[in-house]
Amino acid sequence: MVKKMNEITKKMEEFGKFVYEQVEKGKSPYMVIPQRGLTNVTFDEENRMLILGDRSSKRYYLNVSHTRKFMQTILVASYCRRLVEEGKHAGIRELYYALKHSITGTKENTFEDQTESNAITEDIEVTLDLLREQLNLTADRRGYLFGDVVIKDGEDVFNASKLGRGGWAVPGTVEDIEFPEVNAEYILVVETAAMADRLIEEKFAQENGALIVACQGQAPRGVRRMIHRLHAERRLPVIVFTDGDPYGWYIYSTIKQGSMNLAYLSKRLSVPDAVFVGMSMGDIEEYGLHAVTERLKEMDKSRIKELKSYEWFKQKQWQRELELCLKLGVRIEQQALANKSLEFVAKEYLPEKIEHKRFLP
Amino acid sequence: MVKKMNEITKKMEEFGKFVYEQVEKGKSPYMVIPQRGLTNVTFDEENRMLILGDRSSKRYYLNVSHTRKFMQTILVASYCRRLVEEGKHAGIRELYYALKHSITGTKENTFEDQTESNAITEDIEVTLDLLREQLNLTADRRGYLFGDVVIKDGEDVFNASKLGRGGWAVPGTVEDIEFPEVNAEYILVVETAAMADRLIEEKFAQENGALIVACQGQAPRGVRRMIHRLHAERRLPVIVFTDGDPYGWYIYSTIKQGSMNLAYLSKRLSVPDAVFVGMSMGDIEEYGLHAVTERLKEMDKSRIKELKSYEWFKQKQWQRELELCLKLGVRIEQQALANKSLEFVAKEYLPEKIEHKRFLP
Repeated sequence: MVKKMNEITKKMEEFGKFVYEQVEKGKSPYMVIPQRGLTNVTFDEENRMLILGDRSSKRYYLNVSHTRKFMQTILVASYCRRLVEEGKHAGIRELYYALKHSITGTKENTFEDQTESNAITEDIEVTLDLLREQLNLTADRRGYLFGDVVIKDGEDVFNASKLGRGGWAVPGTVEDIEFPEVNAEYILVVETAAMADRLIEEKFAQENGALIVACQGQAPRGVRRMIHRLHAERRLPVIVFTDGDPYGWYIYSTIKQGSMNLAYLSKRLSVPDAVFVGMSMGDIEEYGLHAVTERLKEMDKSRIKELKSYEWFKQKQWQRELELCLKLGVRIEQQALANKSLEFVAKEYLPEKIEHKRFLP
Repeated sequence: MVKKMNEITKKMEEFGKFVYEQVEKGKSPYMVIPQRGLTNVTFDEENRMLILGDRSSKRYYLNVSHTRKFMQTILVASYCRRLVEEGKHAGIRELYYALKHSITGTKENTFEDQTESNAITEDIEVTLDLLREQLNLTADRRGYLFGDVVIKDGEDVFNASKLGRGGWAVPGTVEDIEFPEVNAEYILVVETAAMADRLIEEKFAQENGALIVACQGQAPRGVRRMIHRLHAERRLPVIVFTDGDPYGWYIYSTIKQGSMNLAYLSKRLSVPDAVFVGMSMGDIEEYGLHAVTERLKEMDKSRIKELKSYEWFKQKQWQRELELCLKLGVRIEQQALANKSLEFVAKEYLPEKIEHKRFLP
C-alpha cells in the first residue's frame, strides 16, 4: 500500500482539511460545490465546447435540508480516498453497494438508491476538478479499438491490429494506459459494431492508416477519454461516422463538444476539432440511396428542431443539413451503404470523402 | 475467389437444386421449411435442451399467400451463397439493406423492414441445418474474454490474458477461430462488465485458472458459440455467475439449454452441463446482505412464476430457489457483494463456492 502524494491525493486532502478545520473551530462545517444544473452550462465559443459556469452552492452540515447530502458527500469522498490509496478501482454501482447501510441507531439508510450516490460522485468530480476515473471509479464499458497502435497496460504490451477480428475491448478506465507506438494517421469513430466489423473485414484500418473505434451507440466515458487522449497527446485527427439521424448527430456532438450533463468534463473528454464524415443527407442523392432510407418519426422531427436551435449546430452547413433532413423526411443508416455493395463503404465512400475532406464541421 | 465445396456449399446447392428441378419439370416450385413457432419447441429430457420438433411447412411459389416469402427466401439464400463463395461476411442489417429494392415494373419492395429479412434468415438456418454464422452472416456483438487462452484468428495469434485490463472483444462470428493453447480449468461467464472487471482487477483468472467471459446482459450469439466450442472441444466446464433475479436466471438458462426462439440452434449453442454459482437467495442470509437487496417488482414476480413452470427449472433446487425468492420478495445483484469488501467476491465468495461445488443445477 503505497501512499502516493500527487495532484489527486492533494486535492482530496485539501477538501477534507477544509471541512475538518471548521469542525475543529466549532463551526457548522460546509463545503462549496459548483452547480451542475443546466442553468449553469454554457457553450464556450472560444474553446468550442460546453462548459460549466462559475455558480456554486454551499452545503452545510447543520442545515436540515443539507445534512443528508453532506453525510453522503463525506462518505463517498472518503471511500474514493481509500480506493486511490490502495490503488483499487470500483464501479459506481459497487460504490453504492459498498456504502449502503443503515445508520446506527436509526432506520435511516445512507443511500436509498444509486441515483443518490451517482449525484454525489458527480458533485465530487466537479468540486475537486478531477475525473471520477482519477478517483479510481470506473464507468460502465462498451466499445472496442482496432488498428495499428501499441498499447501498454501494466506489464502487457500489444498491438491492437493483431487481435484477429475481435479488437481490443476498451476498459472503463484508460487513465494509466500508454501508447508507446502509434502508426495511424487518424481515428475513425464508428457508431455501430456492424459497421466497424465491415471496415475491419475490408482491411480499412491497414489500407488507410485509420484507428477504428467502435463506440456501439453513445460513446461511453472510457472510449471518449481514449479518443481525447490519442487526439491531445498524439495529435491524431478525429473523424466521426454515424447514422444520418438525430441520434447519430448527437453521438457526434457529444464526442466533439461534450454533453450538457457532463459539461464539467468537456475539457478532459471532448475533441472540438472532430469532424463528421457521414451519413449526410447529400449522400442519399449522390449515391442513389432513396430506396434504403427510413421515414422520420415525429420524435425524430422534434429532436432535429431541438438540435437546430443549439449554438453548437449553428454553422451554416449543419443548419442546411438539418433543414434538408426535415424536408426529405427521412433518415439514413450507415449500413444502408451495403445497398451499393459490401465493399463500397471501405473502398469508395470513406476514402473519397476523407481524401477530399468532405466533412461537416 | 476460391470455391470451397464443403458441407455448407453442398447444403446450399442441394437446396437450390431441389427448387430448380421443380421449375425445370414445369411444376409450381416449393420448399420445405421446418416450423419455428413455439408449438414446435419442446424440452428434450435426454439431451437437456430446447429443441425443435419435426413439423414443417411447404412454401409454394404459386400460392398467393406464399409468393412473397418464396421470393424473399430465394433472394436471401442466393446472397448467402455469394457471401460464402467470396469468403465475405455481412451483418443481418447489411443483408437487409443489400437486398432491399423495388421489384422492376412494380411498386412492391423486396422487404418492407428488417423483421422480414430476419425471419427468412432464420428459416434458411433451420432448413439447411446450419448456423447463420456458417452462412457468413454475423450477429451483433458484445462481450469480452479475459484469461489464459491462446487465440488464433487468421494470421493473428495472441494470449487473451495479455491484453491489459481490456480483454479481447469477442467478434460476432467465431467459427474460424482456433484455440491452440488453453491453460484454464473452467469458464466463468459473468453477467455484468463491472463484475468481470472486478475479477480482472483482483487477478481472479490467474489465481483460479478461470477464463472470464463478460456477456454484458443476455449472451450474444458470438459469445454463446465461443463458450459452446470451448466446452465441446476443450472440455472446459462452464460456470455461470449472474444477478439473483429472473433476468439473471434467464441468462443462465439460455446458455445452458438454449432459448425458445432459437431452439433450432440449441445443439450448437447450448451447454447443458453448465452450472449456476450465484447469486442465490441463500447468499443473502449466509453473507448478511439484507441491506443491499432490492424489492421485487410485480413484473419480476410474474416472471418468476413463469420460470417455475418451465420444465427446465423443475429440479428441486430451482423450485426451492424460486419459491424462496418470492417469499423474501427481493432480488440481489452481483455487485451487492461489494458491501462486504471489493475483494470479497474474488477472494472468498467464488473460490469457496466453486471449490465445494455449491452450485444450482
